[in-house]
Amino acid sequence: MEQLAARAQTLVEALPYIRKFHDAVVVIKYGGAAMVDNQLKAAVLQDIVLLWYVGMRPVLVHGGGPEVSALMKRLGMQPEFVRGLRVTDQGTMEVAEMVLGGKINKDLVDGLNQAGGRAVGLSGKDDRSILARKLETHEGQPIDLGFVGDIVSIRPDLIRLLVDHGYIPVLSSIGVGVDGTSYNINADTLAGRVAAELGAAKFVMLTDVRGILRDPRDEGSLVGRITAAEVGDLIADGTIDGGMIPKVAACLEASQGGVPRVHIIDGRIEHGLLMEIFTDRGIGTLIAKDAAALP
Amino acid sequence: MEQLAARAQTLVEALPYIRKFHDAVVVIKYGGAAMVDNQLKAAVLQDIVLLWYVGMRPVLVHGGGPEVSALMKRLGMQPEFVRGLRVTDQGTMEVAEMVLGGKINKDLVDGLNQAGGRAVGLSGKDDRSILARKLETHEGQPIDLGFVGDIVSIRPDLIRLLVDHGYIPVLSSIGVGVDGTSYNINADTLAGRVAAELGAAKFVMLTDVRGILRDPRDEGSLVGRITAAEVGDLIADGTIDGGMIPKVAACLEASQGGVPRVHIIDGRIEHGLLMEIFTDRGIGTLIAKDAAALP
Amino acid sequence: MEQLAARAQTLVEALPYIRKFHDAVVVIKYGGAAMVDNQLKAAVLQDIVLLWYVGMRPVLVHGGGPEVSALMKRLGMQPEFVRGLRVTDQGTMEVAEMVLGGKINKDLVDGLNQAGGRAVGLSGKDDRSILARKLETHEGQPIDLGFVGDIVSIRPDLIRLLVDHGYIPVLSSIGVGVDGTSYNINADTLAGRVAAELGAAKFVMLTDVRGILRDPRDEGSLVGRITAAEVGDLIADGTIDGGMIPKVAACLEASQGGVPRVHIIDGRIEHGLLMEIFTDRGIGTLIAKDAAALP
Amino acid sequence: MEQLAARAQTLVEALPYIRKFHDAVVVIKYGGAAMVDNQLKAAVLQDIVLLWYVGMRPVLVHGGGPEVSALMKRLGMQPEFVRGLRVTDQGTMEVAEMVLGGKINKDLVDGLNQAGGRAVGLSGKDDRSILARKLETHEGQPIDLGFVGDIVSIRPDLIRLLVDHGYIPVLSSIGVGVDGTSYNINADTLAGRVAAELGAAKFVMLTDVRGILRDPRDEGSLVGRITAAEVGDLIADGTIDGGMIPKVAACLEASQGGVPRVHIIDGRIEHGLLMEIFTDRGIGTLIAKDAAALP
Amino acid sequence: MEQLAARAQTLVEALPYIRKFHDAVVVIKYGGAAMVDNQLKAAVLQDIVLLWYVGMRPVLVHGGGPEVSALMKRLGMQPEFVRGLRVTDQGTMEVAEMVLGGKINKDLVDGLNQAGGRAVGLSGKDDRSILARKLETHEGQPIDLGFVGDIVSIRPDLIRLLVDHGYIPVLSSIGVGVDGTSYNINADTLAGRVAAELGAAKFVMLTDVRGILRDPRDEGSLVGRITAAEVGDLIADGTIDGGMIPKVAACLEASQGGVPRVHIIDGRIEHGLLMEIFTDRGIGTLIAKDAAALP
Amino acid sequence: MEQLAARAQTLVEALPYIRKFHDAVVVIKYGGAAMVDNQLKAAVLQDIVLLWYVGMRPVLVHGGGPEVSALMKRLGMQPEFVRGLRVTDQGTMEVAEMVLGGKINKDLVDGLNQAGGRAVGLSGKDDRSILARKLETHEGQPIDLGFVGDIVSIRPDLIRLLVDHGYIPVLSSIGVGVDGTSYNINADTLAGRVAAELGAAKFVMLTDVRGILRDPRDEGSLVGRITAAEVGDLIADGTIDGGMIPKVAACLEASQGGVPRVHIIDGRIEHGLLMEIFTDRGIGTLIAKDAAALP
Repeated sequence: MEQLAARAQTLVEALPYIRKFHDAVVVIKYGGAAMVDNQLKAAVLQDIVLLWYVGMRPVLVHGGGPEVSALMKRLGMQPEFVRGLRVTDQGTMEVAEMVLGGKINKDLVDGLNQAGGRAVGLSGKDDRSILARKLETHEGQPIDLGFVGDIVSIRPDLIRLLVDHGYIPVLSSIGVGVDGTSYNINADTLAGRVAAELGAAKFVMLTDVRGILRDPRDEGSLVGRITAAEVGDLIADGTIDGGMIPKVAACLEASQGGVPRVHIIDGRIEHGLLMEIFTDRGIGTLIAKDAAALP
Repeated sequence: MEQLAARAQTLVEALPYIRKFHDAVVVIKYGGAAMVDNQLKAAVLQDIVLLWYVGMRPVLVHGGGPEVSALMKRLGMQPEFVRGLRVTDQGTMEVAEMVLGGKINKDLVDGLNQAGGRAVGLSGKDDRSILARKLETHEGQPIDLGFVGDIVSIRPDLIRLLVDHGYIPVLSSIGVGVDGTSYNINADTLAGRVAAELGAAKFVMLTDVRGILRDPRDEGSLVGRITAAEVGDLIADGTIDGGMIPKVAACLEASQGGVPRVHIIDGRIEHGLLMEIFTDRGIGTLIAKDAAALP
Repeated sequence: MEQLAARAQTLVEALPYIRKFHDAVVVIKYGGAAMVDNQLKAAVLQDIVLLWYVGMRPVLVHGGGPEVSALMKRLGMQPEFVRGLRVTDQGTMEVAEMVLGGKINKDLVDGLNQAGGRAVGLSGKDDRSILARKLETHEGQPIDLGFVGDIVSIRPDLIRLLVDHGYIPVLSSIGVGVDGTSYNINADTLAGRVAAELGAAKFVMLTDVRGILRDPRDEGSLVGRITAAEVGDLIADGTIDGGMIPKVAACLEASQGGVPRVHIIDGRIEHGLLMEIFTDRGIGTLIAKDAAALP
Repeated sequence: MEQLAARAQTLVEALPYIRKFHDAVVVIKYGGAAMVDNQLKAAVLQDIVLLWYVGMRPVLVHGGGPEVSALMKRLGMQPEFVRGLRVTDQGTMEVAEMVLGGKINKDLVDGLNQAGGRAVGLSGKDDRSILARKLETHEGQPIDLGFVGDIVSIRPDLIRLLVDHGYIPVLSSIGVGVDGTSYNINADTLAGRVAAELGAAKFVMLTDVRGILRDPRDEGSLVGRITAAEVGDLIADGTIDGGMIPKVAACLEASQGGVPRVHIIDGRIEHGLLMEIFTDRGIGTLIAKDAAALP
Repeated sequence: MEQLAARAQTLVEALPYIRKFHDAVVVIKYGGAAMVDNQLKAAVLQDIVLLWYVGMRPVLVHGGGPEVSALMKRLGMQPEFVRGLRVTDQGTMEVAEMVLGGKINKDLVDGLNQAGGRAVGLSGKDDRSILARKLETHEGQPIDLGFVGDIVSIRPDLIRLLVDHGYIPVLSSIGVGVDGTSYNINADTLAGRVAAELGAAKFVMLTDVRGILRDPRDEGSLVGRITAAEVGDLIADGTIDGGMIPKVAACLEASQGGVPRVHIIDGRIEHGLLMEIFTDRGIGTLIAKDAAALP
Repeated sequence: MEQLAARAQTLVEALPYIRKFHDAVVVIKYGGAAMVDNQLKAAVLQDIVLLWYVGMRPVLVHGGGPEVSALMKRLGMQPEFVRGLRVTDQGTMEVAEMVLGGKINKDLVDGLNQAGGRAVGLSGKDDRSILARKLETHEGQPIDLGFVGDIVSIRPDLIRLLVDHGYIPVLSSIGVGVDGTSYNINADTLAGRVAAELGAAKFVMLTDVRGILRDPRDEGSLVGRITAAEVGDLIADGTIDGGMIPKVAACLEASQGGVPRVHIIDGRIEHGLLMEIFTDRGIGTLIAKDAAALP
């Protein structure tokens, strides 16, 4: 009985958050440990279905590099990376499409459906939702990585149709050129762009770190709330570096595209998504446009 | 952090219930201690707004006998009862309308709005939602109690319009005759009829007892789940008697009118409504049509 | 037969007015003798239902001072007024809410329904339609009258929903603060504001005088048509004074809020509302923005 | 002032009729003197627009024999009739289409628009609304009248679309065969069929007589109300004969087709349409299915 | 089999044109030989129904001078023209309305319906779609031609309603004054104005010439594509003259009114309409706003 | 010019077929040579987009056995078949999902989009559209093939949503169990079931044979039209045997499920789909319920 009361109390405390984000589109970049560990995966998908039931409108975006590499190796192909980007020849692209569109995407769809949701998987080829072209430069320098693509534009019609009819779209990071060529798109970047295009109320980046750290070796230095400008400073002074840069850049793009709240959270923490959304303190880093927009 | 995790876990455990009653109309008979004690009142109204936010469609029905008697006494009138029913002359009826429609109803509406809901108060006169006539018999015998009324029919148009547009209707137990006469209607009976008319998924009767007890003097004898037929037996053998009979009869009417789950719960337990709806065990008595329909 | 022909002729002559105000929202401030005398009341409500049947969209706003005072006296309370405004302590406010929301409002709703309409009663608490705060100044001077309120804003959603679905909303002059406090609002002012907020085509103020008189002691000095500016002059030179000032001020507020035609008519004349709306000459005073807008 | 009051009173007395026939489809067979005399025509069209403004949904059906004959004579053609039906060769049919569809129909449309309505003219060729075939028998005997047609079926889609979007359809009595052949259709019959097909609440036959007379030479013998069965008796015993028979037959067809109230009224009486619809007594003959259906 | 393959190939080649003009409104000025010769007429109407089936939204506008003159002569009236415009007294106007509205319009409607379409005939009197006034000047000089009218404005509501509900509107060139006077309107001018008002994607002028010719005596000098400015030059230098000027002027008006593609084609070529729309080369003259807009 | 005329003529001749199947759902089982040969594939996809543009609503269903086997071999796995069905262990199922959902499905989607359509790829996991269970018997005998599935039910919501919003759904033959297990479904069977479930007007089975042959070795013995009962006879007497049996069985299931026209056509004939649909004679075999339903 007391336990029941405690549970009821928790629900009551969630009310203000439920109220605030009712009908709001929440774009979630799904990746990292939360995609590999089955228990974590189940927890994240359950969390997303919960958001959906209490009235939010989640949209998932995923990549899947490690599984692409794994299949390549089974096929005797050698994964190769240049400056953190996968060299993508025709064969690699084909493997990537099969793994992302036929395996990971459908696994996520099924997981959401198992948890009680109604999910639909998409790639950027469906309704040509993600128009792309060959990536020509990277970090200011010319580059040729084969079928690695740059996003030209997002056509949100199909995603909106599904969201408006109560479905949870799950989008894999495959783009398509005007001539039908497939492109391998960075999933972080794509997720940020999709969030901006849909006018999302929230963008959540699931990672394998606690959030932005003032001292990368000390998890205790986690930055709970920060403005976009301050994030820029931390990149400039090298506090944020390495693999975090593209993730943070995608967050900034969403923020500049008008997404009021951008969250970086640790996908390794079970139900971290709920903790971040249903409490003021959260468990990761919240990025807002400016100080006035922070809670 | 651990506390956050526990809260997240609670939300996750609520998911199956949220899922099950999504979009479902839940009619709540509001009364007793939960209407008098301000803290209990706030808790109940918060619970209702929570149900509303997670996708259910609550409709409140209330009476308000004690407050009617209180105003009568202030006006030098003497409340009088015959076989548990209020003798209602013209003056009493006028007082009842003012107290129910102008005070209690608007207090509940305001409490729901304070808690973040969008509530609208109604009496049976609005759009002639509750058509009534003079009560002629009671418990099988002729009776003349003045403006005490019998429900002729419920016109659900206005309530449905409000529910469909996302409002929480709050209905006071006033009926109207074809000639415009006001009638004092039993709120329990009304609530059961409204639940049946709206095709509600649940009918919840808030009372000042724990539920149906096998031994009225022992709260430990609470019946957790029971079929409508068994309830009839308990009335027949006298286990259920006195003031519980009209409440239980209203529950049976809702059950026979097609409401699959009817709950009697104790309004004195804070957040009891949530505990009943978001757990399998519940805290009161659940009445279902037959054994197959029990969870 | 000749009589039938004359009746047909009357209907034909009403055609241009029906045509002109088809689908137009008409806000009517209902009060004075027309609310006390039962025959007059029946006639006004019948007129309103007629307007509704021929395609207009009436919205009623009412107060009810005399009945509030009457109940207060029955309860041994002493009505008190300062500069024409009711001193409203907690007990008075409670009485006002009961009388306005539980008695007068529901009586009007029922009268309209009896006449064949479909009316719904509202107070400013329903959906927080009328947000108010404590009145701090009156006629330029600080004042403290307890729960007498100033309108902060009108939220028209619920009124519009009802109008759009063919109902006649009947609104009592109760406002609500952000913290849920009830406020006693001046019904004339409220009616003018509601007319402006809804973009009404007409605002009709039912009073106990013939309209604006050039000589207050001579009903023959009735002003048939007048511009808002000229009304201002008549206030400035003292022609309009006393109890007429708040009524006329409410009319000017509606006019400045964009209501093209504002009428002051005598509620003591049976079917005066029809005469004003269905003839060019009318029976009271028509206020328009400027000379060009007069018929 | 008194006059204004009398006018208001008339409007109030019309209220029950307005209420009763709100949204009701009223099919009017327009013809006879009311189509020739310009003042009568203006009065009828004004009446129809009034019905439309107070919420009814009028549909006009017209023929136009005299004007067809007039143009034929100007063209040197000789109108010829067999048993009351026009012998219709190719040339006659062409003249009939031009006069009915190009002249009379558009004159009526324009008259309704002048009176403030929004009318649209149709012939049975538009959307193939009236499918017809050659008339093979008449009064039980074989007949060959050229392009005189029998109604096969009414396709009501276009008429309904116009009615539902607030237009007044005006339909001329031209039918079309499956092969595109034009047919001259009896307008009385057509009007009765259209009334039945549309599920009209009323069918009004405008004629040049007072209604059904017990003694055809005595207007004082007018039958105010009668059942369909009694009408059959009056035909059988010869009381109704000659030119009245097809008109009355069309009325019976509407009645049997489910139109609850069928009126025969004298189009020569100015505003007779209003008198019939807005009073209980009426001015012509009201035919109902049976005695129970008479007012 | 080979023949089947060739037919399939043709359908495939039509695909890009079908795709391009899907849902596009196409206004067609119908006239000349294509309206007189029955085989040509059937072919044009079939083409229009085909356009309709593959997703375009055709609207026809027609005049009918020769048939008006023919009936006038049969009636002993003498057609008279001043500077190419018909002198239109009351009698002439009446004949024009009957011929255009009752004969030609309904013939076209029926032809389209025979070919499988769903057509509805309209004149400018229906819903007062074409408001007109007396033509006062022509080619810069005062003129008095009786009931020849100038277009004041097009009210597109009714045409749009029909188009949006899948009908093919067929509009005759009759206008109406604010006082109900009928006016004879130039059908070419009307068609151009209607195309602009509806925001048509195409305006097609069916004529009895091949298109714009550089040398009027040499059909080989046909101009396939031309800008609006160049058309102006050809008028200025006299290459375009005589009867072509009003037709070309109507085309320019459509072009300046925002219609991106205006076609002049020869109605004497069977299925010329299809050839023009379903091939890049076309068979007549295509006028576009400027060089950039030419295909 | 003559060539243009011939092309126009072809379009005109297609009109009756376009008219007949306007808005009709056409389910196409895509497979065989038409899926392997790039030129044939482009032609089929172009044909489908053409059907879509002229108003039909195509839905594609595909399998992809050969490509599954090819990837298995590259991975060192040995494809194995029992009585024509693929033995599907966990690894095989994973390969099948990747190839069907990630490669073939997206290729078809992209091909349709390249041809101007708006296609969306789906697997049976999306919205749990295809509920399946382990196949337990085959041809009347118990069988255990691992993850080869039997269709339990089709949930058509998502497919209908897409069709109703103008998309072309492309469905791969993957089913899902209630526990989320993936199943390999026979694509022919699935296509027939989907056609029945959607109430398709046509079901087209693309194969590598000319149709049903009376003599399997003689293409000249092609049966152009046949009833479902006669097909049963041909199976019984062994005329239809081997690999044709499951294909023909799927056709019969669609026919018995209410699909009025079922076509077996040769996917190796370029534009065969158009030839079959846009001509009476067709190029393959048309199966109808009974003789009366044959054209």
